[in-house]
Formats: sequence, C-alpha cells, structure tokens
Amino acid sequence: MKNQVLKKLVIFGVGLIGGSVATTLKKAGSSAEIVGVGRSSESLQTAIDLNVIDTASSNIAEALLHADIVLIAAPVAQTPLILNAIKPHLHADTVVTDAGSTKSDVLACAKEILGEQFTQFVGGHPIAGAEKSGVTAATADLYINKNVVLTPTLDTNQNAVQRVRELWQNCGANVTEMPAETHDGIFAAVSHLPHLLAFALVDDIASRANAEQLFGFAASGFRDFTRIAGSHPEMWRDISLANKTALLNEITAYQDELSRLKQMLEHDDGDALHALFERASTARNNWAKLKEQ
Amino acid sequence: MKNQVLKKLVIFGVGLIGGSVATTLKKAGSSAEIVGVGRSSESLQTAIDLNVIDTASSNIAEALLHADIVLIAAPVAQTPLILNAIKPHLHADTVVTDAGSTKSDVLACAKEILGEQFTQFVGGHPIAGAEKSGVTAATADLYINKNVVLTPTLDTNQNAVQRVRELWQNCGANVTEMPAETHDGIFAAVSHLPHLLAFALVDDIASRANAEQLFGFAASGFRDFTRIAGSHPEMWRDISLANKTALLNEITAYQDELSRLKQMLEHDDGDALHALFERASTARNNWAKLKEQ
Repeated sequence: MKNQVLKKLVIFGVGLIGGSVATTLKKAGSSAEIVGVGRSSESLQTAIDLNVIDTASSNIAEALLHADIVLIAAPVAQTPLILNAIKPHLHADTVVTDAGSTKSDVLACAKEILGEQFTQFVGGHPIAGAEKSGVTAATADLYINKNVVLTPTLDTNQNAVQRVRELWQNCGANVTEMPAETHDGIFAAVSHLPHLLAFALVDDIASRANAEQLFGFAASGFRDFTRIAGSHPEMWRDISLANKTALLNEITAYQDELSRLKQMLEHDDGDALHALFERASTARNNWAKLKEQ
Repeated sequence: MKNQVLKKLVIFGVGLIGGSVATTLKKAGSSAEIVGVGRSSESLQTAIDLNVIDTASSNIAEALLHADIVLIAAPVAQTPLILNAIKPHLHADTVVTDAGSTKSDVLACAKEILGEQFTQFVGGHPIAGAEKSGVTAATADLYINKNVVLTPTLDTNQNAVQRVRELWQNCGANVTEMPAETHDGIFAAVSHLPHLLAFALVDDIASRANAEQLFGFAASGFRDFTRIAGSHPEMWRDISLANKTALLNEITAYQDELSRLKQMLEHDDGDALHALFERASTARNNWAKLKEQ
C-alpha cells in the first residue's frame, strides 16, 4: 500500500517521545507541517529553536484545522484532559493516536470522551525510551528497529490504523497490532512487574537501619538490577494503577515463583536450584543474543 | 605500618580473580614469585604465557615451601578440597586466604580442616567481577577502588590479617573488616537476593506458553534488570546454599514488601505507591551519584 502524504501533524507534549517523531520526520525530508501543543511555552519555544516543530499553538481549534494526525505524547494522566480539549474541534478525517504505556485504560477513556469519533482513535505504544527526557533529548534514531504496538478495536477505522502505522514505520519502527488486553498483559510481565520489583528492593533496603552500609557494598549487579528503580515516580504510579489487574496477576505469579525458590532453599535442593538458575540463565542469554542481532 | 615484603604467593585457581591479583602485583613491580596451582594444566600454561604467573605446580608440598600467602581463588565448591590438600604442607608462617562470595561457611570449613592452623586463615571477599571469566580476562585494574571485605575471627592471627590487607591494598582495593555473619547478611541483601529475583523473573517468563511473544517485547529495562540472571548457574547454586539462612530472611522480607505493594495497588492507593516509588527512586539515584564520584 502506498503511503498517504502527511501534510499536518499535531503533537501534544513535545518531549522525548513526541519530539523524536518530529525530528525523525524532518530529517527524512517530510514536508509535513508539525505543530506542537503543550503546557510549557518555554519548552515549545525550545522545540522551535531546535527545529523540531514548525510552530507552537495554544489555540486548539486552529491547531487541529486540516490536521491529518494528532499524536498525544504527554504524560498519560493528561490524556483525558487532552481528549476533552480536542473533541469539540476534531474533524472527521483527522486520526488521533497516543503513546501511552498502557492501552485498555486509554481506549476506555477515548471511547467515553470521543463517542462516535472513537473510530478515529488508534491506541499506540512505542517501546522506546531513554535515560533522558524532554525535547532536548529527542533524536532521529530513537525508533529505529524498535517495536511500536497499535491496539485497534473492532470499531477502529482501518484507514486510521494504516495512517498511524505509516507514521511509525516512517520513523523506522516495527509495528505490531494486538488487542489492548494482550498488550497490557505482555507489558505487565516484561516491563511493569520488573519496575515494581526494582522499586520494592531499593525501598526495602533504604528503609533499614543499616541502609548506608548496605548501599556501600552494593556493586555492579545491584546497579543494573535497580537502574529502573530510578524511574519517574508519578509515571510509574500512573502506569501501575492503569494496569492494575494485569499487574496484580503478575505479582501473584511472581510470589508463587519466589515461594517455590524458597522451598528449594529450605530443603537444600541444589539440583532444583541449579535447574531453575540454568533455565533462567539460558533463556536470558539466548534472548540477549537475539536482541543483539 | 610498613608493608611486609611479599616473596612468594601461591594462587589456587588462576582465573579472572586470581589472575588479576597476579597481574596487578607484576605490573606494580613486585619481585614476588607467583606460583599457580589448578585443575587445568592448559589454563596454567596460558597464565605462564601471558606472564601472569611465574610457574605452575602440581606438587603442593613444593608449591607451599616458603610461601608467604596462599590465595584460594577457585570455584567455592573446591575450597574444602583445596584446604585438605594444603593442610599437610602448610608451614606455620604461611597465611591462607580466599576470595569466596560467602564467608560463614568458608570459615566453618577452614576451622574444621585446618584445626590449630585456623589462626593462619583469613576469609576474604573481593567485590569485583566482570562479564568475562578465565585468566585471559585478568587485568591490572580490576580491584582499583573496589571493596574487599576480610572476616577475621577472634582466633585469627593479627599479622596474617595485616598481610592479606596489604595484598589487596597493593591491588588498589579498599579493605574493610567485619564479622562473617555481618558480611553474609549484607551480601544476601545487595547481591544474592537480586540475583535470585532476576533468575526467578526470567524463569517465570520462560516457562509460559507465550514466552516467545513476551521476550519479543522485552526492552532495555528488562535487559538491565535481568543481566544478572545470565550468571553462572553452578556458582549461584553454591552461593545460595552457602548463604541459605541470610538469604531466606531476605526473601521473606522481600515477600512482605511485595505484599504491601500489592495491597496499595488493590486499594488504588496512589499516594502510597507514589511515596514508595519516590523513596526508592531518590535512594537509587543518590546511590548512583555517590558511586560515580
């Protein structure tokens, strides 16, 4: 299928995620007009100065006029506010998409707010990020070979899905479609649970009387294991609550796994411990090899 | 106190750990004779070819003659065998030390095997390692600014402790002394538990019907969190069993922390989740800043 020409893209939240989409399109020679909308006029001005966006707008009606795609890339908690703000000005041929880490909650919210225009909404999740945030961290290679998941529903307009797919493919990403529930289950397991486990470990250690001594002897294994515990508290509160059901299932499954491990230790079952560690080690190293390719 | 001259060092297990001690001493201009003892004559020959050690020996009586220090740096499971092998040839003025990750078990074993000569044994644990292993990975900077913990007992000869302290200080390490139980408690929390948590997560995911799909969407957070799950299964079986008591306490404390976290989620307690994530995130980032200095 031939790509449809993108003439106007409106980005709500021009930070690392939205700014990298804009920068990538510009670098690829796209002639699309890119308009930024955001809470901070200072960071929008920075985005203009860096030639990430063409213009900034605080007038939503004007911003949405003739827009092909609206990309919501602001902190997830703002999604309902943004959807409410755009609803009165949303033209029938404009596609709306987002970049949030959870999808069932976003779809429910979009359905409620957009009503009949929910057909124009395509849930999206680019699996990319970096230590840094903000538009100054935006780069044209953030999405190359990264996964982007789209979660269309039976209601979603197929052309809208195609437009969003092309947007991300033009950024170099591999686009996959799946139901929102499947997405949320997968990311509860491979992203949200590990974040919670890392937060829990650091909090457990930090709360002890000998915390300073413990941290003093923590080394490189601890450093890597807990890197994600340095993540943004608000963001992870929002993700945890948004994906509560899947996450609770994951925590329960993990607690069961820990109980099994504990039993092996209690019974001095070296064979069972070795078998578990070997399965994990083989799976981890095979995964790393595949990822490196 | 003036350093005592090291004339002869015998290393059992010339791999990354033992080989790096030897290389560092040689690079610093030490005139000590360095003798390697090991199971693989091939890797000992490599160590000679790389000028890491001066000679290899399979005659323990000969190797131990006039030895100032014997460093046991072989896989921990071999420690009893090695102690039994050196016992008949151990001179009164030779100090024996090790490099194992757990200390209470090593001290108990050394006490049992060495008997009255247990006073000459100093438990040690260099907190250093690398992705690679083997003598070819040995480097002269492995221990620079790294922690080495020594665990002398009331029985231990003070001069023996001083000799081992000097050995590690000459490698650039920061040497700390503490009781073996304190050591094992600290490393259960900041090293052994994180390893078990990472193994458990990967094993849990790898055992599922949709494992391939899950691994397919795992990204950089998962990569760092699970890096230590790629560690050596035998080594971690041995460490887990050797430090069983402290590790079981840690697993129980962690399960309690997870239950608290689960309750916060079940009650949609965003404030409590945010507070926990913020405590963890602040502690993690402060730790990382201190470590970078």
